[in-house]
Amino acid sequence: MIKVVADCFGGDHSPGANVEGAVAALSKNKELYIILTGDEANIRAELDGKKYDRDRLEIIHAPAVIGCDEKPTEVIKTKRDSSMMAAIDLLRTDETVAGMVSVGSTGALIAATTLRVGRLPGVMRPAFCPILPTMTGGIVGICDSGAVVDCGPEMLKQFAVMGSVYLQSAFGIESPRAALLNIGTESEKGDKLRKETYPLLEELEGVNFVGNMESRDLLTGKYDLIVCDGFSGNVLIKTTEGACLEMLKMLKKNIYSSWKYKLGALLQKKMFSQIKDFMNYQNYGGSVILGARKTVVKGHGSSNARAIEVCIDQVCRAESSRMNEKISAALSGN
Amino acid sequence: MIKVVADCFGGDHSPGANVEGAVAALSKNKELYIILTGDEANIRAELDGKKYDRDRLEIIHAPAVIGCDEKPTEVIKTKRDSSMMAAIDLLRTDETVAGMVSVGSTGALIAATTLRVGRLPGVMRPAFCPILPTMTGGIVGICDSGAVVDCGPEMLKQFAVMGSVYLQSAFGIESPRAALLNIGTESEKGDKLRKETYPLLEELEGVNFVGNMESRDLLTGKYDLIVCDGFSGNVLIKTTEGACLEMLKMLKKNIYSSWKYKLGALLQKKMFSQIKDFMNYQNYGGSVILGARKTVVKGHGSSNARAIEVCIDQVCRAESSRMNEKISAALSGN
Repeated sequence: MIKVVADCFGGDHSPGANVEGAVAALSKNKELYIILTGDEANIRAELDGKKYDRDRLEIIHAPAVIGCDEKPTEVIKTKRDSSMMAAIDLLRTDETVAGMVSVGSTGALIAATTLRVGRLPGVMRPAFCPILPTMTGGIVGICDSGAVVDCGPEMLKQFAVMGSVYLQSAFGIESPRAALLNIGTESEKGDKLRKETYPLLEELEGVNFVGNMESRDLLTGKYDLIVCDGFSGNVLIKTTEGACLEMLKMLKKNIYSSWKYKLGALLQKKMFSQIKDFMNYQNYGGSVILGARKTVVKGHGSSNARAIEVCIDQVCRAESSRMNEKISAALSGN
Repeated sequence: MIKVVADCFGGDHSPGANVEGAVAALSKNKELYIILTGDEANIRAELDGKKYDRDRLEIIHAPAVIGCDEKPTEVIKTKRDSSMMAAIDLLRTDETVAGMVSVGSTGALIAATTLRVGRLPGVMRPAFCPILPTMTGGIVGICDSGAVVDCGPEMLKQFAVMGSVYLQSAFGIESPRAALLNIGTESEKGDKLRKETYPLLEELEGVNFVGNMESRDLLTGKYDLIVCDGFSGNVLIKTTEGACLEMLKMLKKNIYSSWKYKLGALLQKKMFSQIKDFMNYQNYGGSVILGARKTVVKGHGSSNARAIEVCIDQVCRAESSRMNEKISAALSGN
């Protein structure tokens, strides 16, 4: 039995999508046990009429919700009765719980996971690792992408280890190609941090370090894991998101400017929907906080039921592949 | 008279594009005097048959060319007879020369400018400032984007000043909206460097500091200048370049997968050529090395004649608007 907590609030489509996703996950995975946190009446209203195994689902009433603009470190203290903090508390106190899924405030989730759930033995700081689709049909992980903005080389080394184990465990990538985000591919390139990190990554056992990479190659499929400090990782992922979005907007604006272009787009309707589907991160799962004692998956704020289901499955895959044990073993061996 | 040196080698279309661009600039700007550096026989062959004012053009023979994979600091010592280093030497020794344009190795150009041409009084380190088009039809500058990878807050402050003066002088933007690249827009966000830099930017006289920005907003037109360390600025620009390119490639691949999509694209032919034109950085000028004693403009390696002409015009605009004097004045006032 794998116990997963689903924080039912904090997203654009909460609690509807969260509850629907949890129920879908429950019906597909007979090993799964779900605990829903949030306003009980609201959750019960969403469950109403749905078919699910009542022996494998429970609700913990936690009526408060965390706003996007609330300060993460404050929230941990003041919003103990929120759906997110109730879930965090379960992770902290109930050893039978494997992990949780949330679509709420990223900052609050990272802070609460680090401070309340705690780290695996040997982990300096938990890292935040989102996944993007690549142009060759694969995925690429970015570790760290915002949890630790001031990093030393030893931390980057740990990000390489944790990210590699994660991609092996949760995505079945046998020997993930890990690259160091840098301003050039030559080994001597970069700032002080990169120059100090490079030799540490070269020495790592069990990590397939392929050298430096330039950010323009992020989506090309050349790499499975990008190792970086949280500041530049955050720039990397948000720039990609922004550039792709602005490109699509520009295309749309241009198409709408003439009936001829519109007619052309009509012929390409299926193609555009396929591209949109390909770019929809909801299909690829959430971002995992790596190095915490439990597996915490952060879904996008706009997650639908399908996205929530994928996130819950991510916790299950991490648990059944013993990801955290492997991370501890890999860190102690390096 | 404005004297500009054009390094005629090092690009994909050199020396043809360089010579043609220089001749075009010469015929449009009667105040311009051009010095071409490179293999004289090759340059003469390109000039052959072209009409230009012989009193305003001279050639300095420098036959060596710098390769992309040569180490910048080595090149400065060993390739003194290269077209780039001959141009740099002119900037260093001839006070009547205003600046230069090159499409050769960026690393070598930045190193040579910093070490051989020298800095303006008060400048800690020269910065590299490329320009991108925004989705609202404007431009945005990124300062620094790779010249200084290890930065302190005082350097970022200087980048804000130099970038603002540049956008005013060379692009006529009256009060450029300068933002600090960060992982969130709230004033307390970021790593140690950003937290220390924020209050310094707030205090700056003559800089229109509008706060923190997230990289996903780079192309939206909300900002005129992005202030950042060279490492994250490099990630910012190369990620944008990569994401846009991969998006276009994906679109093309998809279009070619069906005759229906191809037919649609046929109707949109003009639109795609307009988008391509819009995204062509060659239309927006090169990247300027700010804070050096002379104005050095780096054009893209694939620059055509038109791009070279725009780069030469950039030096002229900086010179006639007394950009470097203004930078010195602004730095000493802050």
